[in-house]
Amino acid sequence: MAEYCIGIDLGGTFIKFGLLDRSNKVSGIFQLPTPNDKGPEPVIQQMIAGGKRLLADNKLGVKDVLGAGIGSPGPLDFVNGIVRDLPNIPGFQNVPLRDRIAKGIGVPAELENDANAAGLGEYLAGAGKGYGDIVLLTLGTGVGSGIIVDGKILHGWHGTGAELGHIIVQPGGELCACGQRGCLERYSSATNMARYAMRLIQEGRESSLRETLGRQGSIDARDIELAAKAGDKLAAEVWDRSLYYLAVGCVDICRTFDPDAIVLSGGLTKAGDMLLRPLLDHVRKLHWTIMDIMTRIVIATLGNDAGVIGAAGVAWQKFGGQKAAAAIK
Amino acid sequence: MAEYCIGIDLGGTFIKFGLLDRSNKVSGIFQLPTPNDKGPEPVIQQMIAGGKRLLADNKLGVKDVLGAGIGSPGPLDFVNGIVRDLPNIPGFQNVPLRDRIAKGIGVPAELENDANAAGLGEYLAGAGKGYGDIVLLTLGTGVGSGIIVDGKILHGWHGTGAELGHIIVQPGGELCACGQRGCLERYSSATNMARYAMRLIQEGRESSLRETLGRQGSIDARDIELAAKAGDKLAAEVWDRSLYYLAVGCVDICRTFDPDAIVLSGGLTKAGDMLLRPLLDHVRKLHWTIMDIMTRIVIATLGNDAGVIGAAGVAWQKFGGQKAAAAIK
Repeated sequence: MAEYCIGIDLGGTFIKFGLLDRSNKVSGIFQLPTPNDKGPEPVIQQMIAGGKRLLADNKLGVKDVLGAGIGSPGPLDFVNGIVRDLPNIPGFQNVPLRDRIAKGIGVPAELENDANAAGLGEYLAGAGKGYGDIVLLTLGTGVGSGIIVDGKILHGWHGTGAELGHIIVQPGGELCACGQRGCLERYSSATNMARYAMRLIQEGRESSLRETLGRQGSIDARDIELAAKAGDKLAAEVWDRSLYYLAVGCVDICRTFDPDAIVLSGGLTKAGDMLLRPLLDHVRKLHWTIMDIMTRIVIATLGNDAGVIGAAGVAWQKFGGQKAAAAIK
Repeated sequence: MAEYCIGIDLGGTFIKFGLLDRSNKVSGIFQLPTPNDKGPEPVIQQMIAGGKRLLADNKLGVKDVLGAGIGSPGPLDFVNGIVRDLPNIPGFQNVPLRDRIAKGIGVPAELENDANAAGLGEYLAGAGKGYGDIVLLTLGTGVGSGIIVDGKILHGWHGTGAELGHIIVQPGGELCACGQRGCLERYSSATNMARYAMRLIQEGRESSLRETLGRQGSIDARDIELAAKAGDKLAAEVWDRSLYYLAVGCVDICRTFDPDAIVLSGGLTKAGDMLLRPLLDHVRKLHWTIMDIMTRIVIATLGNDAGVIGAAGVAWQKFGGQKAAAAIK
């Protein structure tokens, strides 16, 4: 009896593979490098080879598998299972990834946005387990998001919803790569936090980070965190501004989706309480007073495995039928 | 065979009643005054009497009706069908309205937030008909909203989602009645638009509205619309600011829910193109450039009947079973 789904998480540097069983138990996770310099074909072959190896390593045949879920960066055509464009892999345009992988491995496949898949992963097997609806925010190069309502990924009518990194938290604010001004991502991603600190230093502001910048050539969010901890005023100001806007985003999430939990992931969350405590302080001050805050804000637990687990979860939801849907939570 | 559901829309001044059939055809709408000064009991009795009259007027018995949907201002306890508090009706606290109405009329009943019901009404039988997911924004005293995803009302996990009037469109901005600063409602409701104009006049700004204010004792959004049309600079500025923030809200709705259509209702929408044209201009300027705008912005068509029609639609979804769900769109 088919008791597994395959998850495949396509990243710009690595492709991750793993199995998820009917009770959301994860096994067999491994990764292969992404051949990202020769167009789509080597990438597709690597994904197929990895899927087959996953089965062989675990002594499974295609009859033991209901299907494969593929998490991929976007933009995607969900209906037809096509990757429209992968900015990190030159030449990867309009690739019918779903059908190629299905044919190559020999099991039905489904394509999903990687951030959405990560949201489902945390919901099924990570920090969101035991919660109702959740919203995942990934704080890295950008701010990604995955929204789970009634156990399902919310896509929006045209498949371009759940882009919470691009809600406007400061009208007329700084210009984002998406062409909007004042996006959450422009203030609260790790990359943009570092960029803001470097700008202030280049404008002549005093900070211990000036020496770090001179020595390393650049600074990152971790440098800012450590400098702020050590009492650097500019670092503390930059850190706090980022969390203030993240709190605005969290309040907007409460007013729109009212989830049971907001799950934070990505590099910034390694700061732990140094992130959570000031964030919650800002949320408390910004939040309406007519009702208590009911949404919890927690840190993700699956790390980089959320995507591959969620991708397998997508396959369970698509191919697992009623029985699997009931087992999902 | 039971072929109708009853809709009841409880307002502070009137209670509206109507029938919805399996094909979303509306009939029999009438209203009765809300006895709003003697606590909950007369209100409940009026709702039951109106429901019975609706059946008698249309020569129907309870066997012809699958159920009744009740739209009510909040906050509500959806699970138990209880109205926690009606600010406009003194003493109306913790009333088990769903079960009282069900018992009184003799049909099963369901309780829903009035703005959510209006959203479903426009979706089933109004401006949202023919569209996929929709978001309704009601621009009146406040800014209310109803969100329809996959044909269903989105409530949020704790029942406090879909409060789009209280997303933050200007962090640190003006104080809203909800206790937050910079809410959409604080900038884009008809009432707050008028309040802003009066403040600017009282601060000494020159405007033809000064004379209107002196004569009438107050001004409303319609006065501002007319003055702006006649070339008054302050009126044009106030009108435009309101639509700018409404556009910020619309962009946020695209990034979160990505609906097929945003439906605007309420007094402000009587301005027609004078509202839509500058709103769309602002949305175009604020919207990201990486993809075209796919969400349409349209004006509601059901007026004050949206709530009662949507309330009946809620009953169809709850009590109509599979057949009704299929018929819904």
